[in-house]
Amino acid sequence: MFYIIDILGTIAFAISGVLIAMNKRMDAFGVLIIAFVTAVGGGTLRDILIGQTPVSWMTNMTFTYVILITTLLTILFRSKINYLRTSLFLFDTIGIGLYTVVGIEKGLLAGLDPIICIALGTISACFGGVIRDILCNEIPVIFRKEIYATACILGGLTYFLVRKLPIDSNFVFIIAGVVVILTRLIAVKFKISLPGLYKE
Amino acid sequence: MFYIIDILGTIAFAISGVLIAMNKRMDAFGVLIIAFVTAVGGGTLRDILIGQTPVSWMTNMTFTYVILITTLLTILFRSKINYLRTSLFLFDTIGIGLYTVVGIEKGLLAGLDPIICIALGTISACFGGVIRDILCNEIPVIFRKEIYATACILGGLTYFLVRKLPIDSNFVFIIAGVVVILTRLIAVKFKISLPGLYKE
Amino acid sequence: MFYIIDILGTIAFAISGVLIAMNKRMDAFGVLIIAFVTAVGGGTLRDILIGQTPVSWMTNMTFTYVILITTLLTILFRSKINYLRTSLFLFDTIGIGLYTVVGIEKGLLAGLDPIICIALGTISACFGGVIRDILCNEIPVIFRKEIYATACILGGLTYFLVRKLPIDSNFVFIIAGVVVILTRLIAVKFKISLPGLYKE
Repeated sequence: MFYIIDILGTIAFAISGVLIAMNKRMDAFGVLIIAFVTAVGGGTLRDILIGQTPVSWMTNMTFTYVILITTLLTILFRSKINYLRTSLFLFDTIGIGLYTVVGIEKGLLAGLDPIICIALGTISACFGGVIRDILCNEIPVIFRKEIYATACILGGLTYFLVRKLPIDSNFVFIIAGVVVILTRLIAVKFKISLPGLYKE
Repeated sequence: MFYIIDILGTIAFAISGVLIAMNKRMDAFGVLIIAFVTAVGGGTLRDILIGQTPVSWMTNMTFTYVILITTLLTILFRSKINYLRTSLFLFDTIGIGLYTVVGIEKGLLAGLDPIICIALGTISACFGGVIRDILCNEIPVIFRKEIYATACILGGLTYFLVRKLPIDSNFVFIIAGVVVILTRLIAVKFKISLPGLYKE
Repeated sequence: MFYIIDILGTIAFAISGVLIAMNKRMDAFGVLIIAFVTAVGGGTLRDILIGQTPVSWMTNMTFTYVILITTLLTILFRSKINYLRTSLFLFDTIGIGLYTVVGIEKGLLAGLDPIICIALGTISACFGGVIRDILCNEIPVIFRKEIYATACILGGLTYFLVRKLPIDSNFVFIIAGVVVILTRLIAVKFKISLPGLYKE
């Protein structure tokens, strides 16, 4: 079950990379790299920071195959991808919910402080997109406009609050993921964003 | 004593991140990330390169708390931060002096060559700012204008020269750090910079 | 023999870094860093991803000396570097051929899947240039125009095809490297490039 969600998240991230790279008029190789980096970048940084190497996409081939096939299909059917916009948004949102909680649990396994675990979960969920934007020479979008990382942080706080209750750890996982997903859905639905902090 | 200097350096780096991120009109989350990356980025790259993981800010919470509080206070009092410009410059300069020598000593512990240790010290001191500038979509400022990394390199050379003398290792630490600090203070005071190398 | 090629590749990468950094009007320190990063960046990322730390340029001083001397000479003789353009292109092409195969063999030693080994070889050969372009605030050139990474991937596929034949492993190394080099030479000679994938 979680595995399926993980793959749906990878697909959504890879497609977002393909679309942005094609907008930047990159060639086929550039598009593939941006798709790959968007999908695995967050988890790679997470693994490097805690010293879990070789990093996870190097030892589990599923993700590589999923990204290769997704990139190919997205390029072939690029004129029709607009019809999927809502599905993609949902996959992406479910993906960050899952990645956040996976990151937190990897941090706990490494014996890290809860605050650091939340940071690690947020990095897992968000930094693929950050690296994508850097490679495309843009200021990363999550620093400017959206309730995105904030949703991950709220989900992370929920994880550690709920964890103190006498409930099964699978439920803790699910509840925290759902908080990430709902926060983002509500923020996008009602156009809520963080205040800018313009220098006066 | 060193610990206090370390924290002052972290504060100065975090504030410089906040100010630049606000200039780029980032939201609150973006500002926090840029502050964090500026403060811990150099040490993180150092730890990853020598394989000391989980990286140091993940296992010592002090820096996380200092950065969170510094960011909050800088945002709240942003209209008054100009009065602190001289203090900030001093903190930052003391910070790079300290980070340089800490980086060198971590390299020595890892059994590396003195030249590599100097590179590692310079990376510790400077790459937080480099990552900050990349995330803000600027050519890193230290590549263009200032005696900054050069001060770190001079301090590093001093470290290995002084180390051969029959003096206490704490003094070696202090002398090298002071060379970094004085080089930068003198360069800024007298507007000394490295020559550009324009292609003819 | 391989060692000499490795050093020629390092020289070519370092010179390409110096030239681009001077075009961006960086100071002497910036030029040195860009030269260094271009030459060792790909191998550094490779070593970090598979967890081989301290990364290789930190434990073998030859590369550091070669890069320092190359940078100095390139700056001094910058007005004459145009005469070397063809030699540089050859060194660079031989360099990526070699780096690709070295990366693949490091991946095999780490017990990774052939596809991941090919990715690792391509990263070793190409990401120095990617990091150089990011630091210079450009969209990385390999994502846009050239048969470059594609040559590495073809060489990598060749490596694993030829490896099944009953021939000496040194020949496998050489054949794969030569495929990378010939692919790039032919692509540049006949101006072959990957198709762009403009969004319609």
